[in-house]
Amino acid sequence: MTSSLKLGIAGLGTVGTGLVKIVQNHADLLTARAGRAIEISAVCAQTRNKYRGVSLEDYAWEDDPVALAKRDDVDIFVELIGGSDGPAKAATEAALKAGKDVITANKAMLAIHGHQLAELAELNNCTIRFEAAVAGGIPVVKALTESLSGNKISRVMGVMNGTCNYILTRMENAKLPYDEVFQEANNLGYLEADPTLDVGGIDAGHKLALLASIAFGTKVDFDAMNLEGIERITIEDIQQAADMDYRIKLLGVAQMTDQGLEQRMTPCLVPANSPLGSLENATNMVVIEGDSSGQIVLRGAGAGEGPTASAVMSDVMELARGVRIPTFGQPAANLVEAPIAITATPAAYYLRMELMDKPGALAKVAKSLGDAGVSIDRMRQYSHNDPTAPVLIVTHKTNRTELDTALKNLTKTDMVAHAPVAIRIEEL
Amino acid sequence: MTSSLKLGIAGLGTVGTGLVKIVQNHADLLTARAGRAIEISAVCAQTRNKYRGVSLEDYAWEDDPVALAKRDDVDIFVELIGGSDGPAKAATEAALKAGKDVITANKAMLAIHGHQLAELAELNNCTIRFEAAVAGGIPVVKALTESLSGNKISRVMGVMNGTCNYILTRMENAKLPYDEVFQEANNLGYLEADPTLDVGGIDAGHKLALLASIAFGTKVDFDAMNLEGIERITIEDIQQAADMDYRIKLLGVAQMTDQGLEQRMTPCLVPANSPLGSLENATNMVVIEGDSSGQIVLRGAGAGEGPTASAVMSDVMELARGVRIPTFGQPAANLVEAPIAITATPAAYYLRMELMDKPGALAKVAKSLGDAGVSIDRMRQYSHNDPTAPVLIVTHKTNRTELDTALKNLTKTDMVAHAPVAIRIEEL
Repeated sequence: MTSSLKLGIAGLGTVGTGLVKIVQNHADLLTARAGRAIEISAVCAQTRNKYRGVSLEDYAWEDDPVALAKRDDVDIFVELIGGSDGPAKAATEAALKAGKDVITANKAMLAIHGHQLAELAELNNCTIRFEAAVAGGIPVVKALTESLSGNKISRVMGVMNGTCNYILTRMENAKLPYDEVFQEANNLGYLEADPTLDVGGIDAGHKLALLASIAFGTKVDFDAMNLEGIERITIEDIQQAADMDYRIKLLGVAQMTDQGLEQRMTPCLVPANSPLGSLENATNMVVIEGDSSGQIVLRGAGAGEGPTASAVMSDVMELARGVRIPTFGQPAANLVEAPIAITATPAAYYLRMELMDKPGALAKVAKSLGDAGVSIDRMRQYSHNDPTAPVLIVTHKTNRTELDTALKNLTKTDMVAHAPVAIRIEEL
Repeated sequence: MTSSLKLGIAGLGTVGTGLVKIVQNHADLLTARAGRAIEISAVCAQTRNKYRGVSLEDYAWEDDPVALAKRDDVDIFVELIGGSDGPAKAATEAALKAGKDVITANKAMLAIHGHQLAELAELNNCTIRFEAAVAGGIPVVKALTESLSGNKISRVMGVMNGTCNYILTRMENAKLPYDEVFQEANNLGYLEADPTLDVGGIDAGHKLALLASIAFGTKVDFDAMNLEGIERITIEDIQQAADMDYRIKLLGVAQMTDQGLEQRMTPCLVPANSPLGSLENATNMVVIEGDSSGQIVLRGAGAGEGPTASAVMSDVMELARGVRIPTFGQPAANLVEAPIAITATPAAYYLRMELMDKPGALAKVAKSLGDAGVSIDRMRQYSHNDPTAPVLIVTHKTNRTELDTALKNLTKTDMVAHAPVAIRIEEL
């Protein structure tokens, strides 16, 4: 039997603690499956004396993650600190420079510095594994990098932020407004310290950017992503969508088009009876479309101690078994910079606006859309008590550029109270 | 760059041809991802001169798969012949003895001879990969063997025979009887030459037996599986299930219980709104429950040229990248013989029987169940024109042993026209 594999774990929050538990509780199982023992040499966290529900006394303690990363008795550096820069990045770089493979759950760091880190890894003959960075316990990174490696990938889609999906389904099921459910989610501890990471779509966007790089052989390019959060979604939008047999999801879509790579993480209307549409609460789902495989759907818990630690552990097992695949599935030098195609694919849109109580208002709205080349499929105006009346429009398929022109013109007419809400209708 | 990886492909039916297409059409992509070229050295099939839609002229031809398996210019033997014994097994053994890794889509061969072949593989320092043998394009073997390798698996479930699921959903949606839909499926070419492989649950049972071995570290034991086909399901059963918000699926369940390993592939009622319940047509779904990961659901095409070839290709890529994992996830010598626990887990059952038009018939039915310790949750008797009347019963949770006693007693009373149909209600 090969010698044991020694981990250095930086960060002992939920995921780090979960990983320690797996290594401790399943030692025999892991050894049988990996063909060698998995050990923890050293750990590191901000606070040493804190009850974590696991015994750490057999492991060396380091206060500094960089020092941990460089230790001679560490084969693999497990980065569970978080944050795109700072100690997480410093320690990751130190580990790679010391010739150690890195396992990380840090989507922010990889979405921003992933390409550079992949280059650094290869320079030092190492790799970075990050199954836990995307969709928690769902084995999507491995599915894309390995299981579908014989496919030309046409599209990757997913609901990859459990908090947003919780908020949207809770609004729908309890008929509660966004602000109230947001507060609930906050009280339940579902939100990041900076909640815009969740509700602004940033966290999910980071994840999608990583999948896009693997799927299309492109350099991670989070800046190119079309990002929109769920903050403006109202209970009326949700009910209106339901009337049309759709549900609103914060949906990520990455696809290669003739104009380049389209990456967006935005609220969308999806068919209610589709796998994505039927997704409830904090569950995550990723859909991958390959030219041979067809559509593969993966569903599971996108966060939490067990699922995320399970994903980290799968990377540990992969490395323990001697599997060493380039960070994004092929050598960093192969990865290309794709032209940016923001929503190149036409779609129908759902529009909601507050019409001013002025003569000819509705006509002007219709004209603004028509002038920009956007044609109306359905329109509904509600009666109003306020100085404004809600108007809902479903357009025919249109390009986003034309729609944006229409929306801009619309705002200029002074006939709508504020910028209209536009939600893409995604047929799956 | 490492030298190219050379395949010998035995069997040029749908899957074999699909594999050749992928290797030909995606040469650059595969090389970039695998870090080396993938080549085909030689092929073999029953008929040489047949139009297959791909050019084979660059490859050596062998009439005998055993000869193909032994060729010096073959690194990996790809077995796509099928059949549990005969040439498929002979060639697989020849390849392993010649020190070559084997990739196969042959669930029948592995379900019956898998353990012995895994031992032979290890003896020769080889491995057998079989992603395509289970659930077509869905990467479930890899998910279980690799992605969830840090988990103690509690249960594996799945709808893994697309033909059966097609028949059941078609019966429901078109309100057609079994025989008629069976004929339709046959005309569409959906059925195996021996249709009991499909509708008798054997094919799906083979697949489940393979997953159980990986999940629980046990020797593949297809003989221990509780097998029941869909032949006796009527449109009335389906409608009755729908009335109770259930759908009937040919469901595989493998779980480790206190009494041993429970493996069954039988029709079950599953909640209509669950992922398994909502599965339509020929789509497959596998659900894996791990102690850390929680429930992971994988969904996709379970058959067909593209999806199955995609799965074979993922095994090729795995081996090309130097990944070599024991056949069932750990060395064959580790795998244990689990005690057989046939349906150890209690469940409610749906029963349908034809009651004779005799006084006291219903009372005798109720008594037979009660005497065996099976209590009735709901019962419905329909009026009848025939000499028999349909009776539907839903029991409270009961053990299968008690239920079987009840059903045996019931048959002895001469009050029912033939053996009752009993379908397990599986809460997911």
